[in-house]
Amino acid sequence: MSQRQRYAIIGTGALGGLYGAMLARGGHEVHFLLRSDFDHVTKHGLKIESHLGDFELSSVNTHATVDSMPACDVTIVALKTTQNRLLEELLTSPTRDGGVVLVLQNGLDVEADSAAVVGADRVLGGTCFLCTNKVGPGHIRHIDYGRIVFGNYSGALSPAAVRIAEEMVTAGIDANATDDLLLTRWRKLMWNIPFNGLSVALDATTKQLVDDPHAVALIEKIIQEVHGAAAASGIEIPETMIDKTIDSTRTMIPYDSSMRIDYLNRRPMEIEAIFGNPLRAAKKVGAEMPRVEMLYQQLKFIEAMRCDTC
Amino acid sequence: MSQRQRYAIIGTGALGGLYGAMLARGGHEVHFLLRSDFDHVTKHGLKIESHLGDFELSSVNTHATVDSMPACDVTIVALKTTQNRLLEELLTSPTRDGGVVLVLQNGLDVEADSAAVVGADRVLGGTCFLCTNKVGPGHIRHIDYGRIVFGNYSGALSPAAVRIAEEMVTAGIDANATDDLLLTRWRKLMWNIPFNGLSVALDATTKQLVDDPHAVALIEKIIQEVHGAAAASGIEIPETMIDKTIDSTRTMIPYDSSMRIDYLNRRPMEIEAIFGNPLRAAKKVGAEMPRVEMLYQQLKFIEAMRCDTC
Repeated sequence: MSQRQRYAIIGTGALGGLYGAMLARGGHEVHFLLRSDFDHVTKHGLKIESHLGDFELSSVNTHATVDSMPACDVTIVALKTTQNRLLEELLTSPTRDGGVVLVLQNGLDVEADSAAVVGADRVLGGTCFLCTNKVGPGHIRHIDYGRIVFGNYSGALSPAAVRIAEEMVTAGIDANATDDLLLTRWRKLMWNIPFNGLSVALDATTKQLVDDPHAVALIEKIIQEVHGAAAASGIEIPETMIDKTIDSTRTMIPYDSSMRIDYLNRRPMEIEAIFGNPLRAAKKVGAEMPRVEMLYQQLKFIEAMRCDTC
Repeated sequence: MSQRQRYAIIGTGALGGLYGAMLARGGHEVHFLLRSDFDHVTKHGLKIESHLGDFELSSVNTHATVDSMPACDVTIVALKTTQNRLLEELLTSPTRDGGVVLVLQNGLDVEADSAAVVGADRVLGGTCFLCTNKVGPGHIRHIDYGRIVFGNYSGALSPAAVRIAEEMVTAGIDANATDDLLLTRWRKLMWNIPFNGLSVALDATTKQLVDDPHAVALIEKIIQEVHGAAAASGIEIPETMIDKTIDSTRTMIPYDSSMRIDYLNRRPMEIEAIFGNPLRAAKKVGAEMPRVEMLYQQLKFIEAMRCDTC
């Protein structure tokens, strides 16, 4: 195998910090862009508590701005989509000629902003199925799951995507390359839309939701709408996934959704990426999602009432 | 005109207390059933602050139970529908042979519980378009509007209904008899369903709702669903009423809906009367109300999480 690739992590939060630390532990040169945690991580490194095994990285390549980052083979975008206006500045420097950008963000068509900076053919997109929280400066708690599924934003699966998947698996990450990124995006939306949305709209944990019969009936209808909009877009997801999405949440370790954490911290929520883009995509193919649209409108109202920095 | 009729008020709250006091001021013998306010009102009477003119009733016929109430010509049911299990006990005594029951409750088919006790042909139903709050023991603040529209629960408009309307108008109440009770019920639901429901689901005042573009877009869709279900039930309401319902709320004096007051006080909410019954009626005629159903499910979840006495 050729020399290991160099990685850049744009956004060292719960997700970027975890995967970046696993890659670094696996022997890769990894460069982390940090904001609030820069001083702490530079001094003390990263601390990972994971259900797959705890570890610490004492020496970390930290960067307060992209100016000090070297060109990298793979730039992982792990910012919230609510910060995508920064991508123009953040992606140019670390992504060297021939390097690719792997967008690990929630939602649909979230790769478009990165593609506008580096070109669609250099962009990969991925969805992460994991429960992870940042619990302190440079301190990440990985509670459950861990799978990444990613593929090319445009066109068929490239050798670059396959190589990244191989390196990630070697580093202990449950990574999978797919030739159908849209399928995995819609599959993830079947969870994100009802559970992120209702956990905020009803101010509840996912456990409280799956324990209530009226909430479960609503969740089922919402997932059916998402499933139907995917089908109208030519994405065939087995119907058994509707029940499976609810059942797997019943057995999930109780967990606050990322959107609820943003809501509780009065931060902007990823409403456009997770709700607005799928609604617009569904509309284009003539699919109706009245409950998803209602949830979108409720979240926009809640954000306007509550967000301190919007 | 024949001798004035004797009235019983079952539930001396913001609504029953106001209309009962106006009838008593108009020279009628009115008997009030009270629970928590019995001692206070027996001693100090009723105090009404109204945009139509303030007044006090120093001497009030108060009753702690129906046992002490005389037979009355008209028994006004002004309890919340959440207390309808009490009607069997409460209606028998004050409603004398030939007397009628006037049900002034929110929702659809809310007359059924009273009809089960005294017979459908002795039941009138009415909707009230008014903003009124009980602000202290025996102390009612009537903020805006005041109209009552009522008619017979079964069959055409009866002389009894017309006579009550005449007496109420003489007493200063903006009362109207209608030969289409269902129309006035659905017309009221066009306000109650979006504004009661969303004021609880989004924890907002009606003013906050009509000031937000996403909330207004949702309200409009919800009203369209209610309007469509009415049409499918054979109730033709002019389409201009959709915008008018929103516009009139814009100019309304800022006001907490009755359901939001119940919610804030952790009391049961009138979810079945206002949401459940219309949903069941719509289903019978094949009309879909996905957003109303979603609101119903959200409210049931919220009540289960929050109500202290459910």
